Amino acid sequence: MSPAQVKFDTRAKKINSLLCVGLDTDIAKIGAEFRGKDYPQFEFNKHIIDTTAPYAAAFKPNAAFYEARGVEGWRELAMTIDYIRSEYPDIFTILDAKRGDIGNTNQGYVTSIFDEMGFDAVTLNPYMGREALKPFLEREDKVSIILCSTSNDGAGEFQDLKAGTEPVFMRVARRVTDAWNEKGNCMLVVGATKPAELRMVRDLVGDMTILVPGIGTQGGEVEDVVHAGLNKEKLGLVVAVSRSLIYAESPLEEAKAIVEEINASR
Amino acid sequence: MSPAQVKFDTRAKKINSLLCVGLDTDIAKIGAEFRGKDYPQFEFNKHIIDTTAPYAAAFKPNAAFYEARGVEGWRELAMTIDYIRSEYPDIFTILDAKRGDIGNTNQGYVTSIFDEMGFDAVTLNPYMGREALKPFLEREDKVSIILCSTSNDGAGEFQDLKAGTEPVFMRVARRVTDAWNEKGNCMLVVGATKPAELRMVRDLVGDMTILVPGIGTQGGEVEDVVHAGLNKEKLGLVVAVSRSLIYAESPLEEAKAIVEEINASR
Repeated sequence: MSPAQVKFDTRAKKINSLLCVGLDTDIAKIGAEFRGKDYPQFEFNKHIIDTTAPYAAAFKPNAAFYEARGVEGWRELAMTIDYIRSEYPDIFTILDAKRGDIGNTNQGYVTSIFDEMGFDAVTLNPYMGREALKPFLEREDKVSIILCSTSNDGAGEFQDLKAGTEPVFMRVARRVTDAWNEKGNCMLVVGATKPAELRMVRDLVGDMTILVPGIGTQGGEVEDVVHAGLNKEKLGLVVAVSRSLIYAESPLEEAKAIVEEINASR
Repeated sequence: MSPAQVKFDTRAKKINSLLCVGLDTDIAKIGAEFRGKDYPQFEFNKHIIDTTAPYAAAFKPNAAFYEARGVEGWRELAMTIDYIRSEYPDIFTILDAKRGDIGNTNQGYVTSIFDEMGFDAVTLNPYMGREALKPFLEREDKVSIILCSTSNDGAGEFQDLKAGTEPVFMRVARRVTDAWNEKGNCMLVVGATKPAELRMVRDLVGDMTILVPGIGTQGGEVEDVVHAGLNKEKLGLVVAVSRSLIYAESPLEEAKAIVEEINASR
């Protein structure tokens, strides 16, 4: 099993939390007290990280919000992951980037995300197949988190197509379970808005960990997610909450409330 | 029709070329005379751009090679697109980034790629569906280039699954043609290694332009691609050549030779 997977499990058990704080830090939505600073996204993140760390099993910046600011945003994303790694080295880190290119080209993303920035995990798009993603999958020290059934409106356009006897997203889950995960370094993404799909995936994949975004703003219900998604160890879920937490009046109270809600259903 | 699509067609006709020069600029592969400079990827690109411009209908940097160098790479990617836009404003520009996230999150990529950097087009992954990609598709001034049947080994793992009566990649081509392209701002990606699939897609999509990577290093044959992929106007193809051109002893001679080979088959 990947050391990064062990890191997540250890942290989740230690603080009794499956919460992943999504750092979807939109420069237009953060308070003026941050926007006026030299490194506004970083300063906002630092505040959220310090505030929510007691409840955070994982932190997950989404690359798009940083790329939106070009070179400056990339610098602040790097400052953010540096800060987490130095101050909270036992908290699992995910770059939500949904990357995926052909074979060697991915090496650029691997270098940047795993080596230069030092994230524990990255989200990946399965459309090009396992061969294409090999540079990620060969990193047994890290975790590759593969999109399976996503939380957005219209996600079923291709994911729900019947391919033989099962929908495409189940085929993705099956291939990841049977072939991609031979080093024990894969997770899957299933949206919180889809508890029925989450249960189907859980039944198929054994104890594999599933990243579940879409709680809060997107409308996913905590209880449904927990009941459908826990594995036999009552772990196996990374419950990602982003906008409804980081822009809350009290991110600390919000994080605490979500963790309690998750744990009440576990 | 998108002004960016018109830009490509106009340039292709003007210089009688369908060649897209892929700026897959790997810091480990460029010559020492560039590596020693302050902005090595940019200096290498500037050299390739100036050399090949007479034959280039399009330039296509791949984001992974720049992200590999973090903030510095992003700066040099921005310098590269600035240089093309100021010196060769009639050459079509594509960021090969294979992006795709949920709805609003994509706005970060739209801002960065279309507005801050000013690319004419971007490559996108269809797995999350049309709804997810709306922030790109709504940009009628730009071009969204959707992955369909890719050139890598193992691409068929999901793309070739039969979904009802047709493979998934044909379903992608059909949905893009019937629904996503209502503003005339979509193209598709079909690998040069797959002339049979290219012909199937061409027969389905009418005159839509198809980006074809995989000539050269990946083994795709020019003649097969041209015969399978041209539209009725003898246009409709963006033939991308990357490593075998930019690392050639004479990129100028190589570009000229490819364009002549393409035109001999047209």
